[in-house]
Amino acid sequence: MIYLDNAATTKPCEAAVKAMLASAEEFGNPSSMHGVGLRAEKQLISARKTIAQKLGGDFKGVYFTSGGTEANNLAVIGTARAKRRQGKRVIVSKTEHPSVLAAAGQLEEEDFDVIYADVGADGRVDTGRLRSYITEDTILVSVMHVNNETGVIQPVEEISAMVRAAAPKAVVHCDCVQSFCKLPINAEKLGADMITISAHKIHAFKGCGALYTANKHIKPLIYGGEQQGEIRPGTENVGGIMAFAAAADAAVTDMAQMRRKREYMIRLLQEKVPDIAVNGSNEYNSGSVLNVSVMGIKSEILLHALERHEVYISSGSACSSHKPQPSHVLTAMGIGAAAVTGAVRISFCADTTDDEIDRAAQAIAAEAANIRKYMR
Amino acid sequence: MIYLDNAATTKPCEAAVKAMLASAEEFGNPSSMHGVGLRAEKQLISARKTIAQKLGGDFKGVYFTSGGTEANNLAVIGTARAKRRQGKRVIVSKTEHPSVLAAAGQLEEEDFDVIYADVGADGRVDTGRLRSYITEDTILVSVMHVNNETGVIQPVEEISAMVRAAAPKAVVHCDCVQSFCKLPINAEKLGADMITISAHKIHAFKGCGALYTANKHIKPLIYGGEQQGEIRPGTENVGGIMAFAAAADAAVTDMAQMRRKREYMIRLLQEKVPDIAVNGSNEYNSGSVLNVSVMGIKSEILLHALERHEVYISSGSACSSHKPQPSHVLTAMGIGAAAVTGAVRISFCADTTDDEIDRAAQAIAAEAANIRKYMR
Repeated sequence: MIYLDNAATTKPCEAAVKAMLASAEEFGNPSSMHGVGLRAEKQLISARKTIAQKLGGDFKGVYFTSGGTEANNLAVIGTARAKRRQGKRVIVSKTEHPSVLAAAGQLEEEDFDVIYADVGADGRVDTGRLRSYITEDTILVSVMHVNNETGVIQPVEEISAMVRAAAPKAVVHCDCVQSFCKLPINAEKLGADMITISAHKIHAFKGCGALYTANKHIKPLIYGGEQQGEIRPGTENVGGIMAFAAAADAAVTDMAQMRRKREYMIRLLQEKVPDIAVNGSNEYNSGSVLNVSVMGIKSEILLHALERHEVYISSGSACSSHKPQPSHVLTAMGIGAAAVTGAVRISFCADTTDDEIDRAAQAIAAEAANIRKYMR
Repeated sequence: MIYLDNAATTKPCEAAVKAMLASAEEFGNPSSMHGVGLRAEKQLISARKTIAQKLGGDFKGVYFTSGGTEANNLAVIGTARAKRRQGKRVIVSKTEHPSVLAAAGQLEEEDFDVIYADVGADGRVDTGRLRSYITEDTILVSVMHVNNETGVIQPVEEISAMVRAAAPKAVVHCDCVQSFCKLPINAEKLGADMITISAHKIHAFKGCGALYTANKHIKPLIYGGEQQGEIRPGTENVGGIMAFAAAADAAVTDMAQMRRKREYMIRLLQEKVPDIAVNGSNEYNSGSVLNVSVMGIKSEILLHALERHEVYISSGSACSSHKPQPSHVLTAMGIGAAAVTGAVRISFCADTTDDEIDRAAQAIAAEAANIRKYMR
């Protein structure tokens, strides 16, 4: 199997599996007062420290959630509801993950003034326009670090500096689900008050994520016990959290390598497949995601054809791919309908080999030629 | 180690561990359109069927969450917000889990008319009084099946019949976290429209639970992708869910055995420890939880003393035990302050042996005598 859908989910690594197994032995409830509970609590603290270190932050700012979707909701909805009296304006980019866009949609229902910021043809936020949207009553700006469909790196540092200058009350949230452990991240340097990360994108298990935040002014989404400062109550997913920290610890952040893999795939496809177009900035790209339009071929048809080669890629993002619909990311980039229909996402991980890239490119070339032949 | 804190959390069983490991191999994203994703989705459906079968329900009604706390919030807050125009009254019992009570507290902030129903000295809801609270504009009644601090079984069938008769618009929610796989549960017979269950209480992993519901009129707490009918979006915790289903499948529901263990512990303690009082109904008890006051001894002192015997029990519920405060459950039962202060919770699982009960009772007797000696 050649799995090139690592932006959708990744295979849990050995360290993550080992940590999960350890949690089945050290199984206490971290809220229990006795030794079994305290040992579980110590593991939570240790996991918080590992995660925080990867973000250059303080472990007290790590709030574990059920995943990136919940963390994005907690950041966007939780912050806006908490700061409602300070202002009504919320700004998100048009190419955010569906969980940020849907959370923003809910805020519109709650009478917030939500602005969806444009991106250029390269997929990067148009910072000139964004600046004009930032008013004094702006309370939240949410721009992702790396786009999940294109791998495009957003100018988050520049945006957060603009927000600091023009809207001192505003909180900057950055969805780093696709950049965590792929790009070096330093919360302060990035200028993000809140950062979302997810375990299953970095070779840990599904069902675990975190919001890292120095901002404690958040209205919870869930109410209950006293866990996690009541910002996110409920018994912690100790196994998932331990596996998350273990995977983060084991991860090798090497953007140059990832970019080399992506460039290699682009070169092979350009050699072998006529009439293709790479979508999104090459200069500002994490390397982990390649979005490419194979003109004239519906992406669903190509990806199913690739299955007989045991090559697995995606059309658009996984979250909405059960109901294929035009990618909101590519559409926002102003890419024509034909190129959107033909867009596939090929996403790499640290273990992806050149040989796998070779074989996948060959399979894509063969199937694309085959499909085009029948279409004539 | 003699672990008698199974109401706080349980050790993952072999079947659960195996299922979790399998999820690390079959690691696809259930939302992905390709074969790897479809295989993961099939496992989700299979897990839904296993869980639904245990509740005598339809698998389409199973919504997986991050645990009992989130499921309780989704049921209580999600239903009330969705039905806001139909009425404002919400009724919960005073002895509900903190996640139901805190969710109800949030509803008060949102101008719902929340009634906290009394319980008798035996810990059971006073159904006579409850009946008087049910008005035509009642939209939600939430009463748990088995109390987490006392093991008391609530008259849910009787309550739901009362609700059907007096408030046809109302939805009945039942927190079955402590009864799932311990008592036989049939959603229809129980009369509950919504049922909360949790994985880590039945020897699966923390971080996974479910809301079972035939009622689709729920306002989500989290927004995002199209997973789970948009009632609970976000990539599903496939490993946790598979482990949950495997543990449910492996569980042996034998209330008679559990009650026998509890009775055995009561008999031993009554023989060996002077001046104790069992809290809550014996007649209506799941058997899985024994709440007993050792008069004159602060429960925290006793439970720490027991650690040197490697006997682990709890004082009150785990969720709030980091900050010891009088149990809201025992207080609602009208139990005196001294008995509340001395109350410990001993909770069994299917694997608890008579020998463990013997040794735990001996340790409790020895330490209670020891502490009392120093107190004189």
